[in-house]
Amino acid sequence: MTFLARLTAAVAARGPLCVGIDPHPGLLEAWGGGAPAARAERLGRAVVEAAAGRAGVVKPQVALFEALGSPGIAALERVLADARDAGLIVIADAKRGDIGSTNLGYAAAWLAPGSPLEADALTVSPYLGVGALDGLLAAAEQAGKGLFVLAATSNPEAAAVQLARLPDGRTIAAAVADAVAERNAGTGAGHGLVIGATVDRAAFGLGGLDSATPVLAPGFGAQGARLADLDALDPDDAHVLASASRSILQAGPDGIAPAIAAAAAALAR
Amino acid sequence: MTFLARLTAAVAARGPLCVGIDPHPGLLEAWGGGAPAARAERLGRAVVEAAAGRAGVVKPQVALFEALGSPGIAALERVLADARDAGLIVIADAKRGDIGSTNLGYAAAWLAPGSPLEADALTVSPYLGVGALDGLLAAAEQAGKGLFVLAATSNPEAAAVQLARLPDGRTIAAAVADAVAERNAGTGAGHGLVIGATVDRAAFGLGGLDSATPVLAPGFGAQGARLADLDALDPDDAHVLASASRSILQAGPDGIAPAIAAAAAALAR
Repeated sequence: MTFLARLTAAVAARGPLCVGIDPHPGLLEAWGGGAPAARAERLGRAVVEAAAGRAGVVKPQVALFEALGSPGIAALERVLADARDAGLIVIADAKRGDIGSTNLGYAAAWLAPGSPLEADALTVSPYLGVGALDGLLAAAEQAGKGLFVLAATSNPEAAAVQLARLPDGRTIAAAVADAVAERNAGTGAGHGLVIGATVDRAAFGLGGLDSATPVLAPGFGAQGARLADLDALDPDDAHVLASASRSILQAGPDGIAPAIAAAAAALAR
Repeated sequence: MTFLARLTAAVAARGPLCVGIDPHPGLLEAWGGGAPAARAERLGRAVVEAAAGRAGVVKPQVALFEALGSPGIAALERVLADARDAGLIVIADAKRGDIGSTNLGYAAAWLAPGSPLEADALTVSPYLGVGALDGLLAAAEQAGKGLFVLAATSNPEAAAVQLARLPDGRTIAAAVADAVAERNAGTGAGHGLVIGATVDRAAFGLGGLDSATPVLAPGFGAQGARLADLDALDPDDAHVLASASRSILQAGPDGIAPAIAAAAAALAR
């Protein structure tokens, strides 16, 4: 079963909400005692429990677990296992990317069946060229998993790189999108793109969405996009995942389940 | 003391060799029994012991530790601690990079004094714009550490992104180099660039080297550049670190120390 088929089924059943699992230092205090990694694990596993049955996709932010060292990574392993046991699609948000032989290390970590960090998809960075990701793409496909490749992000500093143009006139963002769509056309894998929720797609040369190429759109809630705007963003009903993190997590231990339910309802069509 | 001052002192004392610590799966068998993470730890700590006194800089490849899950990250923590105790400059080769608030997680992991993963420098990716790295740059400076920002890499797929041009005509690679040099001019920090050893610098718009901006040049040995070529690469005696990994590690447990000594001797001026 391809990643596209699994993601499509999850979105059909639960809608396009992607719940971020971002254990920011300022949030940890609400999650009991012990070391920061223990609090991050409690937060993460509670989000998974609250998301199960209410959302189809979760996205742990790896940087915030990594910040806690190897105990943080061990906590993330348990969060990932819970999430996959609960039938959620798990996108490890790690923005990894290197030359081919090194990328096989990342494939072993995040995409290999049985790895303690196994996820269903991984976010990656194409600074070394989308072609450098071939080994990761192939590893994902072999396991029915996908990559989400950074294309256009909503931070103000991004234009300096992502709007640069190739000799054929395309922006980097558009060239990345074309390369991913081409890979999907050949494989049906359903690799996706990361495109910020507030990005002006026309300015980046990103026109209509390819329905076989999912879009992960971070920034709903705290970063300014409203969940109700998703229809405008996604007129063709392609797979745009609306990722919301802080707006849900700041509801605290007792508020997460209702916050997820409310966000999912705001996205219901 | 700035990172530039520390790196300059290390290179003056021991030369420009940077020893990669890359526990590729195919190498682990030579490193005793037990779980892969135990072997990777043995390999890493042996490289540190062999490098101490023979080289100034080591560069663990984080992907290959991450591939082993949280036990691999715990192994990396012990390798990093050994290396810093031995007075080596440690560059964590992790190619991290995200939006600002997430980057603070990476800063906490790799650059915060006392973190179990503390290194002296971190490789980062500028796909979200060099400006998105501001928080990481500032965190590094505050702790006397540095970033090495990906500029031009030697893999054949890289040109698709790194040769794209900004409206002012500069390549992405050159714009990244300019931004890092500008940061260094303002701070004296000594953040560096990653530029592959076999890269045609003129084609990427990377002319003369700024002596206040170190260059990490991976690819000596296995990837085709010869250590004896460093003089041609570095005519102005700026700080080009010649990074060699597989050519040293494949010498096995008993061969690493002589291999490091030979590589260092090949670079002596």
